[in-house]
Amino acid sequence: MEIVFLGTSGSMPSPHRNVSAIAIKRGGEIILMDCGEGTQRQFMLSKLSFMQVSRILISHFHGDHFLGLPGLVMTMSLNDRTEPLEIYGPTGTVRTVQSLLDINLFKPTFETRVRDLEPGDEVDCGEYWLKVTDSPHQVPCLAFALEEKLRPGRFNLEKVQALGVPEGPLYRKLQQGHAVDWEGKRIAPEDIVGPPRRGRKIVYTGDTRPNEGLVPFARNCDVLIHDATTESTLEEQANKYGHSSARQAAGIAKRTGAAVLFLTHISPRYGDPEAIEADAKAVFPNSHVARDFFEYKVPLPDGEPGPQKEL
Amino acid sequence: MEIVFLGTSGSMPSPHRNVSAIAIKRGGEIILMDCGEGTQRQFMLSKLSFMQVSRILISHFHGDHFLGLPGLVMTMSLNDRTEPLEIYGPTGTVRTVQSLLDINLFKPTFETRVRDLEPGDEVDCGEYWLKVTDSPHQVPCLAFALEEKLRPGRFNLEKVQALGVPEGPLYRKLQQGHAVDWEGKRIAPEDIVGPPRRGRKIVYTGDTRPNEGLVPFARNCDVLIHDATTESTLEEQANKYGHSSARQAAGIAKRTGAAVLFLTHISPRYGDPEAIEADAKAVFPNSHVARDFFEYKVPLPDGEPGPQKEL
Repeated sequence: MEIVFLGTSGSMPSPHRNVSAIAIKRGGEIILMDCGEGTQRQFMLSKLSFMQVSRILISHFHGDHFLGLPGLVMTMSLNDRTEPLEIYGPTGTVRTVQSLLDINLFKPTFETRVRDLEPGDEVDCGEYWLKVTDSPHQVPCLAFALEEKLRPGRFNLEKVQALGVPEGPLYRKLQQGHAVDWEGKRIAPEDIVGPPRRGRKIVYTGDTRPNEGLVPFARNCDVLIHDATTESTLEEQANKYGHSSARQAAGIAKRTGAAVLFLTHISPRYGDPEAIEADAKAVFPNSHVARDFFEYKVPLPDGEPGPQKEL
Repeated sequence: MEIVFLGTSGSMPSPHRNVSAIAIKRGGEIILMDCGEGTQRQFMLSKLSFMQVSRILISHFHGDHFLGLPGLVMTMSLNDRTEPLEIYGPTGTVRTVQSLLDINLFKPTFETRVRDLEPGDEVDCGEYWLKVTDSPHQVPCLAFALEEKLRPGRFNLEKVQALGVPEGPLYRKLQQGHAVDWEGKRIAPEDIVGPPRRGRKIVYTGDTRPNEGLVPFARNCDVLIHDATTESTLEEQANKYGHSSARQAAGIAKRTGAAVLFLTHISPRYGDPEAIEADAKAVFPNSHVARDFFEYKVPLPDGEPGPQKEL
């Protein structure tokens, strides 16, 4: 699983940063979190294919988070997409996306499945969940978690080979949790297969004031991507407009037990956001200012079972 | 007067070209013809200031021609714009632009004055006219002409000095078309001031099939900016989708007596559009494929009076 930042500027683009869009590539599919104006072209300038986008999550309906949607849908159509596209966002998304697509005098070649989400909703996406909480901002805004389901436990190849079990159907039975009889002995699956391993968890806040409610929602996440519009000296102003400073984002990362923090929605006032990164690192050392086209491979967690209550 | 191409790709962007937008800088104001997604960032990457845009003309409501509008309005607001912004387009523009601005949960800080135009309409903009005709495309589409009004005739400084008239109020009277008495002689304005000189004329087609109706509309223009989606070998396909080939654009340029032809809306299938330029040059030698950020200063016409019927 890999995160590619396609837009990291706050409110408006700058020559060096486009507006909000974060692509999460997982296997052959891409989950896109926010889709600011120009996202389709950011895809073209990245190594990713926008044709692999299966789901688009819109945090809220400020232009810098959703205005790339109709153009992306149009370009997918011009590239003969036929697979349905899932689009999720806060209350009003069904109506808003429909209006947005209707305004363009262009009929998509595929179905858009649009869904309003409420804080607390969980969407089962097969191998992972998309979970939702609210982010306090100027307008209704959602934070999203992508949480992989438990992965099968580690298969102890050495042990099973030592028992002389031949590769093939018996291995599969064990992996699927069934006991196996071999040369008069019963082998229990838990002898060979370790406990289920936790998946990865990525949390994106959208635009948000510092939000204590995020701490349990994002607990022990592998990656926290947090609004960090300003450095700490401009914190009051950031909060006034429904945003966070880098220091505040880092405080949340620390309390939630995140493994790594990426700061995004950087105000275009910052040419080089050194001050922002320094503010965050002072609180939470593993903080990084995201940059357009920056890629982060999310490591697989170790074999030990994860906190199952999270999954 | 200077033309800056901000987006020259057809239907969707490519890594090297953004979608349609053409800025015409005239004095301290910019007239923007089409405003595809990402135009605000193209402004930021150009030498122009988007804050100088006084009028936006939308040729038609396909996404690659108008989806940059709400983001540009939002960014102008975030930069504290207070001057009204004029927005013109085909029938339905008032309704469409209002919906588009309403979808964004963001209130502009300035007034948008939106107006539906019909083929044949002429908007008096003080020193120039904006004139409109229709372009045959898949959906209602307009072509635009920016026509400067007559400029005052050339002031013959040598002659007036030889007559001994002192610089000052008498010069102004002559320039304003009044006779002047000096040392017992009556000096008529036409003795000193030449006939009014024609202004410049720039025509932009929007998306269009080859259109004979454009020939009189664009007659003797200084610059013709024409849809040239494909090279001539793909002409049939271009026409089927309401576009022109480069050869067809050049044919119109030739018949209309344009001084220079810029080809735009280049299909993203062309990495290097050499074939497109060659096709056009074979018919109309002064043809050029526009590129993003290409600038063209429109020369002032010579002193001779222009065809007054045009103005």
